[in-house]
Amino acid sequence: MRDVAIIGVGMTKFGELWDKSLRNLFTEAALAAISDAGVDHIDGMYIGAMSTGLFVGQEHIASLMADYLGMAGIPATHVESACASGGTAVRQAYFEVASGASDIVLAGGVEKMNDGADTTYALATASDQEYEAFNGITFPGLYAMIARAHMHKYGTTREQIADVAVKNHEHGLKNPNAQFRTKIDRETVMNSTMVADPLRLLDCSPITDGAAAVILSSVDVAKKSGNPFVRVKASAHATDYIALHSRKDPAAIPAVQLAAQRAYKQAGIKPDQLDVLEVHDCFTIAELVVMEELSLVKRGKSGDAVTSGMTKLGGKIPVNPSGGLKSKGHPVGATGVAQVIEIVEQLRGNAGDRQVRNARLGLAQNMGGSGGSCLIHILEVV
Amino acid sequence: MRDVAIIGVGMTKFGELWDKSLRNLFTEAALAAISDAGVDHIDGMYIGAMSTGLFVGQEHIASLMADYLGMAGIPATHVESACASGGTAVRQAYFEVASGASDIVLAGGVEKMNDGADTTYALATASDQEYEAFNGITFPGLYAMIARAHMHKYGTTREQIADVAVKNHEHGLKNPNAQFRTKIDRETVMNSTMVADPLRLLDCSPITDGAAAVILSSVDVAKKSGNPFVRVKASAHATDYIALHSRKDPAAIPAVQLAAQRAYKQAGIKPDQLDVLEVHDCFTIAELVVMEELSLVKRGKSGDAVTSGMTKLGGKIPVNPSGGLKSKGHPVGATGVAQVIEIVEQLRGNAGDRQVRNARLGLAQNMGGSGGSCLIHILEVV
Repeated sequence: MRDVAIIGVGMTKFGELWDKSLRNLFTEAALAAISDAGVDHIDGMYIGAMSTGLFVGQEHIASLMADYLGMAGIPATHVESACASGGTAVRQAYFEVASGASDIVLAGGVEKMNDGADTTYALATASDQEYEAFNGITFPGLYAMIARAHMHKYGTTREQIADVAVKNHEHGLKNPNAQFRTKIDRETVMNSTMVADPLRLLDCSPITDGAAAVILSSVDVAKKSGNPFVRVKASAHATDYIALHSRKDPAAIPAVQLAAQRAYKQAGIKPDQLDVLEVHDCFTIAELVVMEELSLVKRGKSGDAVTSGMTKLGGKIPVNPSGGLKSKGHPVGATGVAQVIEIVEQLRGNAGDRQVRNARLGLAQNMGGSGGSCLIHILEVV
Repeated sequence: MRDVAIIGVGMTKFGELWDKSLRNLFTEAALAAISDAGVDHIDGMYIGAMSTGLFVGQEHIASLMADYLGMAGIPATHVESACASGGTAVRQAYFEVASGASDIVLAGGVEKMNDGADTTYALATASDQEYEAFNGITFPGLYAMIARAHMHKYGTTREQIADVAVKNHEHGLKNPNAQFRTKIDRETVMNSTMVADPLRLLDCSPITDGAAAVILSSVDVAKKSGNPFVRVKASAHATDYIALHSRKDPAAIPAVQLAAQRAYKQAGIKPDQLDVLEVHDCFTIAELVVMEELSLVKRGKSGDAVTSGMTKLGGKIPVNPSGGLKSKGHPVGATGVAQVIEIVEQLRGNAGDRQVRNARLGLAQNMGGSGGSCLIHILEVV
């Protein structure tokens, strides 16, 4: 396999973007990434999107987007792994470059969630339709069960869970692309509307429109560009039982651990070498469980770690400097790509007010459903 | 890039399968392919499906299928290119093996179309939603315009178009997995219900449930298996303007020509070396235009070729010995994989009553929308 680099990034602002359609969003991000990379063409393209069929009545989006980018003809493929669709796009582009079949490939993600669809129904199709969704559960309920199990098993407190939201909103204040740039405190979270006990409104990532894109290339192409670039040290993927009830321990998300083991092995690193992480905080509790599965902290100790400030900007190991899904927003298909963009910007030293000092090695963790799939990328600046 | 082989195939019967759900269908095909390959594991999996969200309210199907195969944990990815989703799955598996990242990868496709959804609406999401579908056109209408243009430009006759259906039904009689095993004649086609002038009911492929899967491996693994295997000589992909009205000539489908040029170049062959083809006859007219784009016949001469018997079993170059989409059925996500299976069976000499004698080199052509995307695989027996 050839080494693979990331040489360009681009994204839209995330939010309720009523004046931009699916195709507008994607092309804006893709053109920004192509411009950032300074390339005059791309050999192919992958687009992560969870359900453009249900959200806006459009499938076949890879052909559509190649067309609207003015690149009709290039190979273009849509990939889907629910909320891990963006990470999946990056992984497929990685394979195409690593195989030697192509030198320059775009990996993007997009979702238009605020226009038309029954969004809660559409999102629930990422759970087991016949056993979970059909019986009425939606994702806040599934993550509420994970939260209850974690609180019961490890004594994690409601306050600790709230602190994830407080931290990520603080980070999001420094991110001009974030949907919510609002400082909140623990009391605001704990007094917000109940959604699915114990999770409240400010524990939940929002409904978001947005797109993100990165350009992957062979290291040869990256070196010729003369720009600073980032090497993909690992691209790992794992699945699990799709239904939460099929798993042994509802306080764990094994697909994350499995993907992490594969990623750490491929990269030849240990978790304590990481300088910065973006993780999939679709709900506050998810960030806590993911930290444990990534072996950043011992099992049951993630709540303490967040409350101690360890994962804040300026702390020992900053997690979600972008604001995470919670504050930056969560256009489901774009999220995994936007996470990779934040790590690239941190490693290139372009993260502005939210820059992690001397960041050399970073990880992006993207998750689908209640943990039925997980994609992890480890990046290193060259 | 490493050479890639296909070492196993499996599929369900195609048809109205009211007693089988999406997950039943896929696992049946996947287990058959794994058994045929004689492997004890797979390293990863790709699943082509067009719109399980709209058809049965289930996204995140790669995780679901890994789970229901008893393989939760393996990397599994859903890919979509409308009716070319199956071919896309084969291509992604090809990259993963060619890159050296994995040795044994399953590529499958599935669709459950007869249960619940507004199927015509769901299929129309493969056209340009904002300019085509929104204004009321569906695929029979789009292909009817292609047919009218071809008849006007080249003098192709209604009778010649009907002969595609007659031939493919004759082939389908010999295929135990085909949905329609009914002999028809030219008059039956020309007197069937009008759908979109000039296309009638028997010009249209049916609504179908079904699944198909193949196992790709490195040639090293294939050689060790001791079974006969087939080498992937080319895997090519092209897109085009998604909307028919954006293209210069409605009597042509340029994405097929572009993908074919790439495939012939990669394989180092000329079209007249091919022994057998499976092509995307979603409507009868499609088979005619595709023959021209593949350079099997001169432009405008495809009607004559079909009526002459050149593309029948026993003819100079058999096209769609399986019965094609027209007779075998068209579960949209599974079609591209089922086409590859037919070519593999022909090259291995396992095609029974529909065997093409001395078939050494075959091509499978899979198409999305009105030609917004096209996947082509060229296979050779080793």
